[in-house]
Amino acid sequence: MTQQEVSHGCGGEKGLISIDQALALILTHTHGLDTEVLPLSQALNRYLADDVFSTIDLPLFSQSAVDGYALASQEPIEAGAQFEVVGEVRAGQTVDVKLLQGQALRIFTGSQIPIGTTTVARQEIVEVLSTQEIRINEKLKLHADIRDAGEELTQGQLLAPAGQKLNTGGIAALSMAGVKQLKVFKYPKIAVVITGDEVAEAVECLNSGKIFDANGPLIQAWFQTQNQCIDLIHVNDQQQQVLNLFDDLKDQYDVILSTGGVSVGDYDFVRPVALKLGFEQIFWKVKQKPGKPMLFAKYQRKDQKQCYLLGLPGNPAAVYIGMQIYVSTLLNALQGQKIQPQWLNGIISHTLKPDTRERFLRMSAVFEQGHLSLKSLAKQQSHMLSNLFNANCIVRVPAEQDIHKGQILSVLFI
Amino acid sequence: MTQQEVSHGCGGEKGLISIDQALALILTHTHGLDTEVLPLSQALNRYLADDVFSTIDLPLFSQSAVDGYALASQEPIEAGAQFEVVGEVRAGQTVDVKLLQGQALRIFTGSQIPIGTTTVARQEIVEVLSTQEIRINEKLKLHADIRDAGEELTQGQLLAPAGQKLNTGGIAALSMAGVKQLKVFKYPKIAVVITGDEVAEAVECLNSGKIFDANGPLIQAWFQTQNQCIDLIHVNDQQQQVLNLFDDLKDQYDVILSTGGVSVGDYDFVRPVALKLGFEQIFWKVKQKPGKPMLFAKYQRKDQKQCYLLGLPGNPAAVYIGMQIYVSTLLNALQGQKIQPQWLNGIISHTLKPDTRERFLRMSAVFEQGHLSLKSLAKQQSHMLSNLFNANCIVRVPAEQDIHKGQILSVLFI
Repeated sequence: MTQQEVSHGCGGEKGLISIDQALALILTHTHGLDTEVLPLSQALNRYLADDVFSTIDLPLFSQSAVDGYALASQEPIEAGAQFEVVGEVRAGQTVDVKLLQGQALRIFTGSQIPIGTTTVARQEIVEVLSTQEIRINEKLKLHADIRDAGEELTQGQLLAPAGQKLNTGGIAALSMAGVKQLKVFKYPKIAVVITGDEVAEAVECLNSGKIFDANGPLIQAWFQTQNQCIDLIHVNDQQQQVLNLFDDLKDQYDVILSTGGVSVGDYDFVRPVALKLGFEQIFWKVKQKPGKPMLFAKYQRKDQKQCYLLGLPGNPAAVYIGMQIYVSTLLNALQGQKIQPQWLNGIISHTLKPDTRERFLRMSAVFEQGHLSLKSLAKQQSHMLSNLFNANCIVRVPAEQDIHKGQILSVLFI
Repeated sequence: MTQQEVSHGCGGEKGLISIDQALALILTHTHGLDTEVLPLSQALNRYLADDVFSTIDLPLFSQSAVDGYALASQEPIEAGAQFEVVGEVRAGQTVDVKLLQGQALRIFTGSQIPIGTTTVARQEIVEVLSTQEIRINEKLKLHADIRDAGEELTQGQLLAPAGQKLNTGGIAALSMAGVKQLKVFKYPKIAVVITGDEVAEAVECLNSGKIFDANGPLIQAWFQTQNQCIDLIHVNDQQQQVLNLFDDLKDQYDVILSTGGVSVGDYDFVRPVALKLGFEQIFWKVKQKPGKPMLFAKYQRKDQKQCYLLGLPGNPAAVYIGMQIYVSTLLNALQGQKIQPQWLNGIISHTLKPDTRERFLRMSAVFEQGHLSLKSLAKQQSHMLSNLFNANCIVRVPAEQDIHKGQILSVLFI
């Protein structure tokens, strides 16, 4: 297939930038937001702004790993050895005894072990002879079932580095180390603007020529999965209305995220309005499918802060891809993380015809003996979304080449 | 290595059930909850209770895929062909004209195309000669850039099957089809009970022998990622307190999820209290590491509903694993989805020594040329969590065998 044949159709025009160029421009032109101190319970999914060092040893004190007896014995213990029981300490209690050779203390999982303890016998191997005497029924090494103070972390040791994203496990690990609040990057304040006279918000308004709004619910659900709130605004394709709205938003929000009205049509007002208001265009139009007419612009406010405008096209598939690829990259960059989407490698299970533009295809990926096998789904057009019920990934398909079965492609799980 | 050597240490005792048995028992003994009708905006992460059929064609009407002109021409169009412009229809407007041979209508992406349209010319190939005349500057096929009514879905076609989980893409696809509310399975009402005298809720209370609570924040963050709320309660290791609490909870909640107090220690009250209150034990103790002492029990209420008790051990690693494996399985089953965790295949990149019990190890998985390569992390003990900053998966390691490099293991991404 020649270059000539491949370039037929829209998207072949000059001046479009590549997906990689668009992502690089987002990273280059974005200033990280300020930081803030949050209680740990509100920090899920945020990025650490500072290294976090442990202020305590972990475990905080030497403790038992089992329910049983702390024993004092200079030598490994033989089956049949007997010990004198001098008391009990429950988990959470302070231990103030000191064990002497031949003595035992009843303890439980997590109980602090007393000074003099050389090993712990789990209760399954202990026979209680009287309230004051026990017999150990199996051979026992020294230092069995003891968790030493500081064996996981010592005071002052790095617990989590700056830039760490706080997932469920991270929140738990920080809690365990007694961290109650931490410095994280602020999450951007986001206005979402759905443009388009054709978008009906309610069934009653679904006159001829109108469509149901997929983009509003899509974007709202996407931010719900991030545990974040946004302000969602619908606006008609009237230049003055769009202008007044953007003029208002640019001073209040870190990001304006719009859908529709960003191409070259007579009623596409997002770009002209942004330029009129003083936004600087970083890029417009990306050589990709879906989502070619995409605008990224920046407004420099008097308060030295910026408002970023990401203008996505109106087609819902372009919006879906745009959220996963560009919006997430922008939001990470604003939170100090200048990173590309985390592409994985997969193996395509069939051929694909070439296209002028690099494509994002919705696919179903399955693991087969450790391999990630990719299969494209029907209904990939930019106004279609129903295949998302079966898709679990987005696959990048290079432009202008036949894709052969077995070829390795970049995959992003969704 | 002989069976004898492998079985040394705790966990080798008889009567423990396997991980697969425990999961199967959860699925067998769980009754799905009722269904409810929710607006789509509140249905993220829920499971559909019924098949959803499209009530409309999608697209709803034949429309343009580009900004340009609807043309009426019986034949494919040659470069240079001219058309008479008879008007304009914007996206969202009703079209009431009928195109005759040789006529054109100015249209935009998403505009309804008028009767008589045979193809659409994108504006990039159109030259405007006057307000009433245009010239097409490239060859154009019939039916170019037309989105046909019903080409994605026809009215009455299955849009999403019962049991479908509603992710972001699904919410958007349903919105687009005009679905405003749907029948989903109720999400269980959950009480989380953190037991343990040793658990300090505040730094001021961190006396000798106490530890910081990792389990409360861990479980709360886990449910936050599911966009769900829980009620979190701390209780001391006092039998009467635990009894009164569980007695109260069993009639109000679908699930009691407890941490700690579930082993055989003198102050482990979860199981004795549950049995005393009339819970039926489904299983207790699983041959796994971490998380051996785990209780699953069921209480039959007078209102014919059930209260399920999942008693996890107190060690935070066991709680973390328990949430990912058992709690998610239980919550899915209660929502009508009797499915095992979705294990993938990965390839271990190093040897592992055998252990008496099947293990869940926290690992770091990386994709290499389409393969999923697994690497275990240090600090796997059940009281340690800090490796979760570096882990991205949980790997099941079979019991009582040497694991060799290159062996395929089951992986769950976290």
